[in-house]
Amino acid sequence: MKIIEGGVCAAKGFKAGAMRCGIRKSHTKKDLAMILSDCVCNASAVYTTNRVKASPILLTKEHLADGKAQAVIVNSGNANACAPFGMENARRQAKAGARALGVSEENVIVASTGVIGQTLPVEAIEAHAGEMEMKYDNSLVAAEAIMTTDTKVKTIAVEFDIDGTTCHIGGICKGSGMIHPNMGTMLCFITTDCAVSSEMIRKALLFNVKRTFNRVTVDGDTSTNDMCTVLANGMAGNAEITAEDPAYEAFREALQTVMQDLARKIAADGEGASKLMTCTVKGAKDEETAEVLAKSIAGSSLTKAAMFGSDANWGRVLCAMGYSGAEFNTEKVLVEFASKEGSIAVCEDGRGLDFDEDLAKKILSQDEVEINVTLQEGSGRATCWGCDLTYDYVKINGDYRT
Amino acid sequence: MKIIEGGVCAAKGFKAGAMRCGIRKSHTKKDLAMILSDCVCNASAVYTTNRVKASPILLTKEHLADGKAQAVIVNSGNANACAPFGMENARRQAKAGARALGVSEENVIVASTGVIGQTLPVEAIEAHAGEMEMKYDNSLVAAEAIMTTDTKVKTIAVEFDIDGTTCHIGGICKGSGMIHPNMGTMLCFITTDCAVSSEMIRKALLFNVKRTFNRVTVDGDTSTNDMCTVLANGMAGNAEITAEDPAYEAFREALQTVMQDLARKIAADGEGASKLMTCTVKGAKDEETAEVLAKSIAGSSLTKAAMFGSDANWGRVLCAMGYSGAEFNTEKVLVEFASKEGSIAVCEDGRGLDFDEDLAKKILSQDEVEINVTLQEGSGRATCWGCDLTYDYVKINGDYRT
Repeated sequence: MKIIEGGVCAAKGFKAGAMRCGIRKSHTKKDLAMILSDCVCNASAVYTTNRVKASPILLTKEHLADGKAQAVIVNSGNANACAPFGMENARRQAKAGARALGVSEENVIVASTGVIGQTLPVEAIEAHAGEMEMKYDNSLVAAEAIMTTDTKVKTIAVEFDIDGTTCHIGGICKGSGMIHPNMGTMLCFITTDCAVSSEMIRKALLFNVKRTFNRVTVDGDTSTNDMCTVLANGMAGNAEITAEDPAYEAFREALQTVMQDLARKIAADGEGASKLMTCTVKGAKDEETAEVLAKSIAGSSLTKAAMFGSDANWGRVLCAMGYSGAEFNTEKVLVEFASKEGSIAVCEDGRGLDFDEDLAKKILSQDEVEINVTLQEGSGRATCWGCDLTYDYVKINGDYRT
Repeated sequence: MKIIEGGVCAAKGFKAGAMRCGIRKSHTKKDLAMILSDCVCNASAVYTTNRVKASPILLTKEHLADGKAQAVIVNSGNANACAPFGMENARRQAKAGARALGVSEENVIVASTGVIGQTLPVEAIEAHAGEMEMKYDNSLVAAEAIMTTDTKVKTIAVEFDIDGTTCHIGGICKGSGMIHPNMGTMLCFITTDCAVSSEMIRKALLFNVKRTFNRVTVDGDTSTNDMCTVLANGMAGNAEITAEDPAYEAFREALQTVMQDLARKIAADGEGASKLMTCTVKGAKDEETAEVLAKSIAGSSLTKAAMFGSDANWGRVLCAMGYSGAEFNTEKVLVEFASKEGSIAVCEDGRGLDFDEDLAKKILSQDEVEINVTLQEGSGRATCWGCDLTYDYVKINGDYRT
């Protein structure tokens, strides 16, 4: 497997486009993007678990019930959630996309991100979608158009091999832009030319999402609009994957690489973030326990504030583990901080170690830092991603220990 | 019942004192306080639910096993949690207090707040506790000494009547100083001259804490050192309360008034807070559902950011309700914002209303604002308290809607 360029256009037969149609008040920012496959794809998606679901989520679920899709139409600037005429406008958006791209309305995935509770100005989409220029190798403009408070475009693609056939898989996404992903909308669109059944896409997606997007800080706290879709058009020419065989595993792994990369990018681009924080818990009695602990650490405002201050305040790590609800032996906890500058143990057997504060500071002053916790209760292991907590709020908390 | 002055010295027979003994590096801030009753009290306490518990918590539990106590010794500057020689030093702290005050060591409550993981410099306490001047009507210095990042002293007292006998109950506390109370330590010390059995104190304390301190933003996320204690010395002279009779109810209500006032003060003094946010959910199918919903709203960073920006962004309220895990009909939600400037409905039946944005802004620009949610599913009702989210972090989020 190797990393390549191209995002959602890296796989054969996928075009993308973007434009400003007038949903946003800004006169420059693009607010509408579309992705199109040359042929109908097998497809699957995962959605927000929020009880309040945006209309495009409900419509997309309907359209994907048959496991088929050919295009995506996505707008920024308005979430079409809790909004007047929500379903009606989501349908009009799908119809506008279908008409512009010449595909069946039922094969259009609709997604939205932006303000909640205001009527989607769907007329702007209807008026201008037909003008959008769809091109191969045009992923970047689409990636830009779905950004809201994101500061960086988030894109990745990989090339991998299935039984001698070269396949591609690529994706674009937008992050919450917030410290916790509960606060904004996570949208992710993935395309592949690998031939794979809807059912096996779904299986791989569910397996991977638990280990990638759902491990970016606190899971469960999801917006009304979160969505991650996969479109597979089969144009690579491999024999269609329909069972959990080695080919499936190769596909799933490639998909996981794409999803994990995008998840890390979302964490690193949390609003105001100055560094990516990777928390790994190992030696837990099972993976679930490790995940609960790692998420609690990654989601702790005080730990995040300490990371901003490059302060090796491991007490906050233990505190976050303690209130996580997970069972563990508090007297058998090893905490280490690491980065490209090295690694340092700061707490062993649940008690503070004498450690080199200058080295710890140097380690934690990097763009990417790790908090590694080792228990002695089993082989459960999980990694979660988060970012530091910056700004004036942190001026108060970042240096509380000294 | 009426509000009076005096804090923990409002009740008969209680003295307080405070001093700087040298735990904190600051040369001016007091870091040790004591409270003393003229006679042994019936007593009870509630503690953090964090799996990692500070040594003073464990020791105090031991000392209160018989439902008796006579004094409190509390330090700031060091939490004595995950610290070397934790239990040994907590015991030495209790002994130092007992010796200084001439009471039995087993009747001393020990509490600590400050940095985690460092050895408590107990020698400083042992060297100086005996010099502390204990005085009636001296609650304020003790309230000041337990502050960490608090900006305001938190104190309250009330006078109430039991069968013709005037009783008093008062308390002091320190807040988390953080946006979420999980992040710092909540300590609260309450004294009363009402005669009441340890068992009935415990009953009233458990009933009230669920409705007061545990409703300040997100419960369950508690520090390693949280503690709320009640000492009752019986000096008011009423017949001892030993059952759930009208006298008990009068005591419990007075205690709730004290605890609720202090809980509100903790919320209002969250770090960087510019306003107190009170969230009430009513019409839920039961109280538990109402509580889960109200807590989720009060704990939502985006809702808090909107309150800072005085932005009537009710979509964030619905979003927080949606991810709370509680069941409710999303199509039957009424959301109103209120303050001393009036009240305005912004969402009805789960959909946005056309409302006067200027009036909404005026209402939300006050020091104390309310978010009131009404469902149509029953008579469950709960109020939670929080604060807004301020600073640069909010400059990004506070005005996202416009």
